[in-house]
Amino acid sequence: MVHIISKKSVSFIGQSLAAKIDEQLFSKYGFKVEQLMELAGLASAQAIAAHYPKSKVAVLCGPGNNGGDGFVCARHLQQFGFNPSIVYPKESKNELMKSLVIQCETSSIPVQPNLPTDLQSFPLIVDALFGFSFKPPAREPFTEILKAVRASGIHVFSIDIPSGWDVENGAPSEASEDIIHPHAVISLTLPKMCMKSWTGPHFLGGRFVPRGLVEEHGLQMPVYPGFEQIVKVED
Amino acid sequence: MVHIISKKSVSFIGQSLAAKIDEQLFSKYGFKVEQLMELAGLASAQAIAAHYPKSKVAVLCGPGNNGGDGFVCARHLQQFGFNPSIVYPKESKNELMKSLVIQCETSSIPVQPNLPTDLQSFPLIVDALFGFSFKPPAREPFTEILKAVRASGIHVFSIDIPSGWDVENGAPSEASEDIIHPHAVISLTLPKMCMKSWTGPHFLGGRFVPRGLVEEHGLQMPVYPGFEQIVKVED
Repeated sequence: MVHIISKKSVSFIGQSLAAKIDEQLFSKYGFKVEQLMELAGLASAQAIAAHYPKSKVAVLCGPGNNGGDGFVCARHLQQFGFNPSIVYPKESKNELMKSLVIQCETSSIPVQPNLPTDLQSFPLIVDALFGFSFKPPAREPFTEILKAVRASGIHVFSIDIPSGWDVENGAPSEASEDIIHPHAVISLTLPKMCMKSWTGPHFLGGRFVPRGLVEEHGLQMPVYPGFEQIVKVED
Repeated sequence: MVHIISKKSVSFIGQSLAAKIDEQLFSKYGFKVEQLMELAGLASAQAIAAHYPKSKVAVLCGPGNNGGDGFVCARHLQQFGFNPSIVYPKESKNELMKSLVIQCETSSIPVQPNLPTDLQSFPLIVDALFGFSFKPPAREPFTEILKAVRASGIHVFSIDIPSGWDVENGAPSEASEDIIHPHAVISLTLPKMCMKSWTGPHFLGGRFVPRGLVEEHGLQMPVYPGFEQIVKVED
């Protein structure tokens, strides 16, 4: 059971504030990317395990930190009894991303650049392609993947931002074929503006924001119960 | 509610196997210390929040990775509504340890080398001084702190190994004054041999060990329910 909070009880933030918070977590507040990515990926996996039955799951990972969250999420999903496969279309030269590939591959989680040929046998796709720093439109090799995912009709769970969406204005159009039309979303730290009108299943994770940062920006943070790492956001 | 498992359902490991597993997680399986420390500290904080009411808590951190787990634990305890203060008697020059100090200090968690002068006002102490690589006896400045903690009679929660214990043979003597006599313990990854005859509250965390490593060493791992990060071990 995931605790439910009201949409009205948390701040929805824009792209520049999201970037500022991210920057300050690593500079002023001394966090390491590895630490917060681990918590973000864990929260994402917990939301998926809370919402979907155990199954095969294709995890689409971009080359940036959103993709890193996806790798970590896949690792935890395996611990939770899911059977993840990673789709990693554009390899990053970043040291941490290389480690994440090794962690998954040595845990028998396949990492491949293309969508699985048996995609239709996957009941669930996790979208960790682009995060809050994305500016549309998506480019190749991602456009082709986004179109194939859309055409597949498979349920998609998006991490932080549904890929291809404008972080503040949301989906360009209901009919767009080169963006993700998610079934459920987990927002990290705080929901972004694009989630304001979202009415589907919506989780929130990222229980790590220091008080000083909350006060500095006057943020309305979610109240998490007990020692939980996720909540569900409803109207 | 924390799920309970039987002591008979998990392996108890010795010091050299614990060191070997640790080494392989970072070499062969590509993990970063920051990732596993974050999960270890989170699991420790969750066990504390599951077992004790919210309160002031003094977290004793050694200069090694066990101390790092303590810093991370303190950070999460604050998120869970506890009021932590860190006692860090011997500063490490390690880059990650320096970051952990900054993370705590910028979150208004005091970090000081000595026990608080008002120690008696703390209902709980967390012991993250020495981990599985410790070989007795403890030395200064730790001996003095261990004696003061013993004399205080305050409940102590130990992370991985009660400090001052022999990892395989346990407490040198019930009467020893320069070791921790814990009220409760969380073992990380798997319990160490010294915990075999322990009958007090015993938690287990570290839901991150890859299958390959489990199989290579024939380990009997705990079965965690759902997406939980801790279980409780009973007879």
